[in-house]
Amino acid sequence: MKVTALAGGVGAAKLVSGLAALVPARDLSVIVNTGDDFGWMGLYICPDLDTIIYTLAGLAHPVNGWGLAADSFHCLERMRLLGCDTWFRIGDRDLATHIFRTQRLHEGQRLSEVTAAVCSRSGVHVRVLPMTDSPVPTHVDTDRGTLDFQEYFVRLQCTPRIFAVFYSGVDRATAPPPVLEAIGEADAVILCPSNPWLSIGPILAVPGIRESLRATRAKTLAVSPIVAGKALKGPAAAMMSQLGLEVSAAGVAGLYRDFLDIFVMDGRDQLLRGQVAALGLEARIAETIMDTPASRVSLAHALLEILG
Amino acid sequence: MKVTALAGGVGAAKLVSGLAALVPARDLSVIVNTGDDFGWMGLYICPDLDTIIYTLAGLAHPVNGWGLAADSFHCLERMRLLGCDTWFRIGDRDLATHIFRTQRLHEGQRLSEVTAAVCSRSGVHVRVLPMTDSPVPTHVDTDRGTLDFQEYFVRLQCTPRIFAVFYSGVDRATAPPPVLEAIGEADAVILCPSNPWLSIGPILAVPGIRESLRATRAKTLAVSPIVAGKALKGPAAAMMSQLGLEVSAAGVAGLYRDFLDIFVMDGRDQLLRGQVAALGLEARIAETIMDTPASRVSLAHALLEILG
Repeated sequence: MKVTALAGGVGAAKLVSGLAALVPARDLSVIVNTGDDFGWMGLYICPDLDTIIYTLAGLAHPVNGWGLAADSFHCLERMRLLGCDTWFRIGDRDLATHIFRTQRLHEGQRLSEVTAAVCSRSGVHVRVLPMTDSPVPTHVDTDRGTLDFQEYFVRLQCTPRIFAVFYSGVDRATAPPPVLEAIGEADAVILCPSNPWLSIGPILAVPGIRESLRATRAKTLAVSPIVAGKALKGPAAAMMSQLGLEVSAAGVAGLYRDFLDIFVMDGRDQLLRGQVAALGLEARIAETIMDTPASRVSLAHALLEILG
Repeated sequence: MKVTALAGGVGAAKLVSGLAALVPARDLSVIVNTGDDFGWMGLYICPDLDTIIYTLAGLAHPVNGWGLAADSFHCLERMRLLGCDTWFRIGDRDLATHIFRTQRLHEGQRLSEVTAAVCSRSGVHVRVLPMTDSPVPTHVDTDRGTLDFQEYFVRLQCTPRIFAVFYSGVDRATAPPPVLEAIGEADAVILCPSNPWLSIGPILAVPGIRESLRATRAKTLAVSPIVAGKALKGPAAAMMSQLGLEVSAAGVAGLYRDFLDIFVMDGRDQLLRGQVAALGLEARIAETIMDTPASRVSLAHALLEILG
């Protein structure tokens, strides 16, 4: 079975690593959000791509949800002494990825090509595909003004109240052909349990991707990032409420109803099955909390079973 | 007494740190070679400026002659795994300087301004002045072809035989006004014991600098980088021979005779005094080997005595 995942950061990386334990690398593709990408001191940083790659390479920090395991922060500490902004924590080993990527982009390579190079040199054979090669930075309109995504997410720790999310320049972006092929030629497409506005939303907003999802012959399944009315991590639940939506797994299901076949919720949400079914979707239950390496594989296994 | 030093890398840094112990920071300027500057992975690296600044800040590696004390190499190690050239050893803390400088240059600052910022944030109050704000990369014609300076110096460890040294673009370079003022308004100008072709030569080749040295009312003194026919460090002696010159302190003195007043040699070279005097220079003897922190200050003290 050829599987393509749509992925944001940490939750997605966990599920993708579970899938990678079960699906041969040649049959697994991951389309990754690049809306969080940003520039820092002239370096081009792609947090979600890096989280996915580091996780698949077995190099990810086991707790933080960003960066590499056992990294040091000597460069960052001296940058602080030089007066630089250091609220985005970049480790010494992590920095190598950003310097490498920035240099390759300056040389004229596309982000897809650089990503493939980082993967192959990190021993990652799963196809990791940026959603687009163009910068499409996510911005949020908040009660503290319009903010860059990382400013909202990292510096202000998601405390501002959000009125709207937009993906700057997305109208002019294009999906690289391998992204559309990964959707069109898959047997199954899995939307990872990632934030609908900050992780999955940017991917769906790239012209051609949502249309491909509507057109694909693949079974399309989403895993709810909301469990019992709460986000496992990050601001998804708060955002739903701030954006005037029902804070529930069913609320998320509604966002994808135009292309989705199956919506998978945690056992704690089984009372919402009828509500999801009323959207015209197949509602399924699984243990969606991935708090151990084994539970990543279990969830991946359950999804593959559901997808048949 | 206002003192201005012309400086290359390690030997110069030692003497400048000796001078800084005796001359108030407001009276001490250092004009630094930038011919060694090079690009690596999109970063703009200035080895001589950094060696001078790190030494003055008390942060220099005590043995290597480059980089910071107690630095780590975690970023470089991962860059090696990513397939990057890593023969130029850049430590994690050192990297911060290069990222900071590169970003400021991209923002449109001049190298002089960035250097002043690095100094002030490193607690260095001596005026450290790049010889020019334009890139003037040193190249060497060798029996292995024309090489970038760092390729010759670091990667090939000075093993190729040199036919000629040239400073690319130096005709179009200009000396920043503070450089010419530092020469014109000094009471004494000291050429540090640095390589005549690779360190002092590029400085003298910047249009206006040699003329300022000829015109200045300052006493002008050079310390020989050659002691008893050998260079204390680096390829100076081999280069003299390859370039067809007499390998001796007196051979170096001849290179500066058009503007120099005093030439200081090590005690081991006192038999050369007559030869130097015959060039029209005042020949003086001092202990020029700086193998301890105290000997840096002793040499600086001896030079200031000679300069009166």
